[in-house]
Amino acid sequence: MAIITLTTDFGEKDHFAGATKGAIYSELPDVRIVDISHSVSPFNILEAAYIIQNAYSSFPKGTIHVIGIDSEINPENKHIAIKLDDHFFVCANNGIMSMICSEIAPEKIVEINIHDRIQSSFPVLDVFVKVACHIARGGTLEVIGKTIHEIKPIKNVTPYVNDDKTQIIGSIIYIDNYGNVVTNIKRSFFETIQKGRPFMISARNYKFKTIYKKYSDIVNFDIPEDKRHDEGRGLVVFNSGDFLEIAVYKSNSATVGSASSLMGLNLMDTVTINFLKE
Amino acid sequence: MAIITLTTDFGEKDHFAGATKGAIYSELPDVRIVDISHSVSPFNILEAAYIIQNAYSSFPKGTIHVIGIDSEINPENKHIAIKLDDHFFVCANNGIMSMICSEIAPEKIVEINIHDRIQSSFPVLDVFVKVACHIARGGTLEVIGKTIHEIKPIKNVTPYVNDDKTQIIGSIIYIDNYGNVVTNIKRSFFETIQKGRPFMISARNYKFKTIYKKYSDIVNFDIPEDKRHDEGRGLVVFNSGDFLEIAVYKSNSATVGSASSLMGLNLMDTVTINFLKE
Amino acid sequence: MAIITLTTDFGEKDHFAGATKGAIYSELPDVRIVDISHSVSPFNILEAAYIIQNAYSSFPKGTIHVIGIDSEINPENKHIAIKLDDHFFVCANNGIMSMICSEIAPEKIVEINIHDRIQSSFPVLDVFVKVACHIARGGTLEVIGKTIHEIKPIKNVTPYVNDDKTQIIGSIIYIDNYGNVVTNIKRSFFETIQKGRPFMISARNYKFKTIYKKYSDIVNFDIPEDKRHDEGRGLVVFNSGDFLEIAVYKSNSATVGSASSLMGLNLMDTVTINFLKE
Repeated sequence: MAIITLTTDFGEKDHFAGATKGAIYSELPDVRIVDISHSVSPFNILEAAYIIQNAYSSFPKGTIHVIGIDSEINPENKHIAIKLDDHFFVCANNGIMSMICSEIAPEKIVEINIHDRIQSSFPVLDVFVKVACHIARGGTLEVIGKTIHEIKPIKNVTPYVNDDKTQIIGSIIYIDNYGNVVTNIKRSFFETIQKGRPFMISARNYKFKTIYKKYSDIVNFDIPEDKRHDEGRGLVVFNSGDFLEIAVYKSNSATVGSASSLMGLNLMDTVTINFLKE
Repeated sequence: MAIITLTTDFGEKDHFAGATKGAIYSELPDVRIVDISHSVSPFNILEAAYIIQNAYSSFPKGTIHVIGIDSEINPENKHIAIKLDDHFFVCANNGIMSMICSEIAPEKIVEINIHDRIQSSFPVLDVFVKVACHIARGGTLEVIGKTIHEIKPIKNVTPYVNDDKTQIIGSIIYIDNYGNVVTNIKRSFFETIQKGRPFMISARNYKFKTIYKKYSDIVNFDIPEDKRHDEGRGLVVFNSGDFLEIAVYKSNSATVGSASSLMGLNLMDTVTINFLKE
Repeated sequence: MAIITLTTDFGEKDHFAGATKGAIYSELPDVRIVDISHSVSPFNILEAAYIIQNAYSSFPKGTIHVIGIDSEINPENKHIAIKLDDHFFVCANNGIMSMICSEIAPEKIVEINIHDRIQSSFPVLDVFVKVACHIARGGTLEVIGKTIHEIKPIKNVTPYVNDDKTQIIGSIIYIDNYGNVVTNIKRSFFETIQKGRPFMISARNYKFKTIYKKYSDIVNFDIPEDKRHDEGRGLVVFNSGDFLEIAVYKSNSATVGSASSLMGLNLMDTVTINFLKE
């Protein structure tokens, strides 16, 4: 059974996601639809790019990922379908795919050209569903679009490195449900520059010189539980997507606070890593 | 495979929606359950009516829509099942269905009378699931209820028109995830009154004399992108459900603002259309 | 078809829930995945315990419930799988299961020991999915863990009763989507102590001497609808999970208010029941 995933900024309340699922089942009764997220911040391309990048590869090869963010067609915002890593992606050409494509080269990109057959003010429902169902039935991308070779880039995907490679300047690209702040510095990028040197990570006036393997590595389990004060402490990890993340142990924005709330860290804020002489 | 959709005010956190799905699968292992929304504002009949009206027709004929809003049974709030447009609806007789029924006449309405067999403090789980599964198995409405011919009306579904047809006074019935405000003025209603005349739409002290076909029609793509200032500009469209909507281009309540936040427009506020002499 | 449910604190936005579903379908194409909740407050064991307790038994026997709250493995937080009431539960041994286990004795508890085969910074995806799919394929618990006989307890599950049984002191363990506050006082517990005596329920300076059968029992339907003032009135019921609940009739935190907002009742606040001489 084909799988179609949905990643949108439709929110949890409106009828948009439900109507989209209805349209898919009307075309293809036997497909499986999986929600990845409908709570991307409205029109936030970078958030959508981060979410789909971290979710898609858990799905079986052949899965079709519909991404409905800023998808109204206009002269500067065309619709595309991409085959990459044996997955399919259907979205607007607005930068969402450039994070994934910077790591894995697409096998095929087409600009969708079935719009003359469709009158639409709800392109996810009218166009993306048609394209996704076409792919799910085994149809080729060439039938629904013309091949292109470049997609629109996105800003802030890659951190900056100075010439003598003593400093990485990254930015916060995502804040997760725990208020942990995720930077655009990936583990492999970090290690290539680091070459084993000690380092100091700075975000506002907070400084960290250790990157932990997991969140609870900050806890000293030799100290009795009632004498520890670890909840609310800041730490740095590479998260499960291998992005450098500033976190707070057992954070909860409503109670102990989070990395974002306690350290005042917001989207697009700078995180700097200085490498030190050994 | 039968499809049962769920539209409720259960919220995303509580166990109610999960328990309802479990009860359906316990009765009918082979059904397909689709969430339309669990984030209707508590007890908000009008919101639920708008959401189900805009979602249901994307689903295949024969789909069964369970609507769990204000569904506790009492002398003034009976349970009903409706067949309409080859879809089935199971809900309380509290006005939710009057928006759909004002456009399409129901084929059949029954007042559910299986309650003597069921002790319930959770009617969606105990009663609506039973009824929905009965219909999914091909059962008729007559078996689970007695035919009635009228349902409870809802307020504010129809806009007001003055005697000489120079003015429509509508109200805001829904605010969507983008903060766009949706009125109860439908395209067909508008066009019947308009008869091609120019018009002025007023909401608070904001005025609009154009209804765009899509959101990005407000953008002049001849101006270079870095010299445009369209994000956050107000506009009027007929939305994908054909309701007149006051929107803000690329709105986001947390950043550029939205029609609701920037113009101070709230549920039940008035939107007036004055037709002008040609 | 096996059913796997998900109850987590992943939130609605992040990729975690989507990635988990993708991993399950990659292992087991024919399973059915049902979301119970992804909106448990971060690291809130008691909320998760309440939600899973109230949802699980609606599902068919044999269902596998994955609970992803505070699941990072460390010396004090092991992973367990439990068979109980012909359902399976996969979670951390952090107290989540102690509410259910206080009512129904588990048939089998194992401490999961497949971690040497798995490198993980995302234990729900890497460990719980593996275990759940193993169970779904008919595998036994002994293959993925070693039997243990005790699980970690949770605080505040049981209310306090004084020696002469004239008083129950309970606490608020959950606040639902309607702002109704749920105590840890279950109907059977209450009735055992009450033995038919009249009583007074106190929460802050609010007092109630009646427990209604359903919310709308507070309404006097003999009074014409436009002369009633029931919306926003406080009342006490045993809710559909048989927990004593202080509610507000047709509550809505954003409009008429809720039990939590109107009476200032929060998680862990005390609710006292005094039994009176007949």
